[in-house]
Amino acid sequence: MNYHSMSAAELGSTRDELAGLYETLQAAGLKLDLTRGKPSPDQLDLSNGLLSLPGDTHTDPSGTDCRNYGGTAGLPGLREIFGELLAVPSKQLIAANNSSLEIMYDLTVFAMLHGTPDSDGPWGRDPVKFLCPAPGYDRHFAICESLGIEMVTVEMLPNGPDVDACAALVADDPTIKGLWAVPTFSNPTGVTFSEDVVRGLMAMPAAAPDFRVYWDNAYAVHTLTEDFPPPVPILEIAAQEGNPNRPYVLGSTSKITFAGSGVSFFGSSESNIAWHQKHVGISSIGPDKVNQLRHLMFFGDADGVRAHMAKHRELLAPKFALVAKILSDRLGDSKVASWTEPDGGYFVSLDVIDGTAARVIELAKEAGIALTAAGSTYPYKRDPYDRNIRLAPTFPGTEELATAMDGVATCVLLAAADKLLAVGAVPDPKS
Amino acid sequence: MNYHSMSAAELGSTRDELAGLYETLQAAGLKLDLTRGKPSPDQLDLSNGLLSLPGDTHTDPSGTDCRNYGGTAGLPGLREIFGELLAVPSKQLIAANNSSLEIMYDLTVFAMLHGTPDSDGPWGRDPVKFLCPAPGYDRHFAICESLGIEMVTVEMLPNGPDVDACAALVADDPTIKGLWAVPTFSNPTGVTFSEDVVRGLMAMPAAAPDFRVYWDNAYAVHTLTEDFPPPVPILEIAAQEGNPNRPYVLGSTSKITFAGSGVSFFGSSESNIAWHQKHVGISSIGPDKVNQLRHLMFFGDADGVRAHMAKHRELLAPKFALVAKILSDRLGDSKVASWTEPDGGYFVSLDVIDGTAARVIELAKEAGIALTAAGSTYPYKRDPYDRNIRLAPTFPGTEELATAMDGVATCVLLAAADKLLAVGAVPDPKS
Repeated sequence: MNYHSMSAAELGSTRDELAGLYETLQAAGLKLDLTRGKPSPDQLDLSNGLLSLPGDTHTDPSGTDCRNYGGTAGLPGLREIFGELLAVPSKQLIAANNSSLEIMYDLTVFAMLHGTPDSDGPWGRDPVKFLCPAPGYDRHFAICESLGIEMVTVEMLPNGPDVDACAALVADDPTIKGLWAVPTFSNPTGVTFSEDVVRGLMAMPAAAPDFRVYWDNAYAVHTLTEDFPPPVPILEIAAQEGNPNRPYVLGSTSKITFAGSGVSFFGSSESNIAWHQKHVGISSIGPDKVNQLRHLMFFGDADGVRAHMAKHRELLAPKFALVAKILSDRLGDSKVASWTEPDGGYFVSLDVIDGTAARVIELAKEAGIALTAAGSTYPYKRDPYDRNIRLAPTFPGTEELATAMDGVATCVLLAAADKLLAVGAVPDPKS
Repeated sequence: MNYHSMSAAELGSTRDELAGLYETLQAAGLKLDLTRGKPSPDQLDLSNGLLSLPGDTHTDPSGTDCRNYGGTAGLPGLREIFGELLAVPSKQLIAANNSSLEIMYDLTVFAMLHGTPDSDGPWGRDPVKFLCPAPGYDRHFAICESLGIEMVTVEMLPNGPDVDACAALVADDPTIKGLWAVPTFSNPTGVTFSEDVVRGLMAMPAAAPDFRVYWDNAYAVHTLTEDFPPPVPILEIAAQEGNPNRPYVLGSTSKITFAGSGVSFFGSSESNIAWHQKHVGISSIGPDKVNQLRHLMFFGDADGVRAHMAKHRELLAPKFALVAKILSDRLGDSKVASWTEPDGGYFVSLDVIDGTAARVIELAKEAGIALTAAGSTYPYKRDPYDRNIRLAPTFPGTEELATAMDGVATCVLLAAADKLLAVGAVPDPKS
């Protein structure tokens, strides 16, 4: 059933069968959504204890009245817990409001307007470029696009970004000021950066003294297996390599507790933290400490977070297994697609035959299955191969997910058959 | 006891008495703080019901699961309540996170980087000036200073900013892009803008088509009397005057519920709202809706907010009366100070003899009474007259407040006596 070894006639009749399947799919009147990495209601239920907290207290263990103004750095107790999980000394970890994306945006805006501690002026004075490992996270890319930062795509390999390519680019170009990274269970490929990649990114000489790596550790504890990935002491590694100000560590509880009502974190060198606090202190009197107290009481300690994540795993691992099974059953023999089977995170990255991703997404949409927009995982929403589709299997219920994935598989096969018929059947490049 | 009509000898012996009083004050080892407009713990207690909300629900009346991502505009129900209180149609009112200051900062940054809907480019391309009615709010001025916006001081009169001066300035200078306003119970003077001032600010022709008035209605419902100030439909007035995009309306529950954990609001024209939402949507996936649900349940409706504010008044009105009484008793006859007796808001604005404010603040500090830093109520922290002191009487308990105010009065008199002795006693300008 390898599509690439079919005769034109075989492909044609396969195509007709698929068209029939697709008609049935369309007739089912589905309304399913695999677009965003959203927790499901039963995942959110795991944190319902938060809804009545902090209850009859309002002071944190250090005696701070969390209801009043003050304290831009956030509650020490909560910073300790996430300092342990993110491998950042708690003094160098800020607990903020509900969005780590907002922190990344602010960090970039502060640099554009004022420059960083290592800059000789505002970034915005001159052209600015960021390295964007792709497939990657669309909201990272959107920050660049919004701020007029030119995005330079580098390839995402199975062990992280292509470090050699990154090193070659940053060595000579002082306008490259940043690199986006999701080091653990990356969005969307599920890749966890290898030790070599991590060290390489921290060590590579950069023409820009103010080159920064946005270390968006959004899925630091979001395992789908029994094991938690060991926290990588990225600040320590960066300091060892002589670039202590390079990494900006980000994290949040958005996919630990409530997606819109969690706590976000920012860790970096003392110098970067002081710089961030100076600017953020102009914009706000401080974060929501009551929500931080709520989270501190809910978790207790880092083990409390790990125990909580194990409950998420129980709900999520079967969904990811289901996706893998359906993709394997429906697409395994055809050789027109490959996909990731991640050990953590929120996504499955599906690669289809070059030139068919947008068509698959269109077919799915017309059958009532919403997928992340074509190209979203690449800078400027332009997938140069028209190949990658990000699947977000967390939100739907199991039955809906099965229906949606089966539908997606039909769309993948139909688009592939159409494509191969149009270009003339080609032999499987792997055979 | 008018200091201005004393002989040098009388003034000298008065000075000696005051020096004795001041020594006693210093010996008392006080540690009192009148610096910031913070609610007192008993005010915060009024909102302790929030600490267990939303309890066993997590959906708002429109059926939104507040725990998940989505909805950058905030919960409709809460926007209706504050739409009524701020006289903004709820569709044009955004409910955001815990800081209206952050919204103001963002609005300014978005304009600096991108320009507004009425701009022909980013504000940051050219010099930018803001009009700053003073005495005013130091955190407004800090935003300007941080972003390199030149501040132009205009006088704060008893009915609002000097509109004629504002009109003359904005008519000819296209680099004047903004004006800071606290229209109700202003910080620090307690002034509520008159109808004429409001209309004048909205109607005055501006050379800059993208001139904005930051209508920071932080104390919209913060009355110290039985009456609530009537909400001013500022967007309607601006539209009538042909400048629909001019006002940015800001509000928050920081001094209604919890100072660090409230909900902030932004109201403006449809065009400005769409522009804000576009940019804020890059920076964050949305505000903390669970906290908004908490507030919606706690208030119920606009009358719920008013009833809640009446409880604040019961706690605050006696403190403001105490301040007025002590200032009157201790300073009334001396003619070396004048002060406001506001009907709402969080501050008493104290004017001392020109050239003595910084000295008073220093004397108070050395006696353990922290006052807002000298000059804070003026752009660049430079009070050209060295005259104005912002008193924040809300946080301390009644006894502490009485002690602090009595101490402040001693410092005011001592500094005045010193000053008059140094320059040679001068006749009371009012006599």
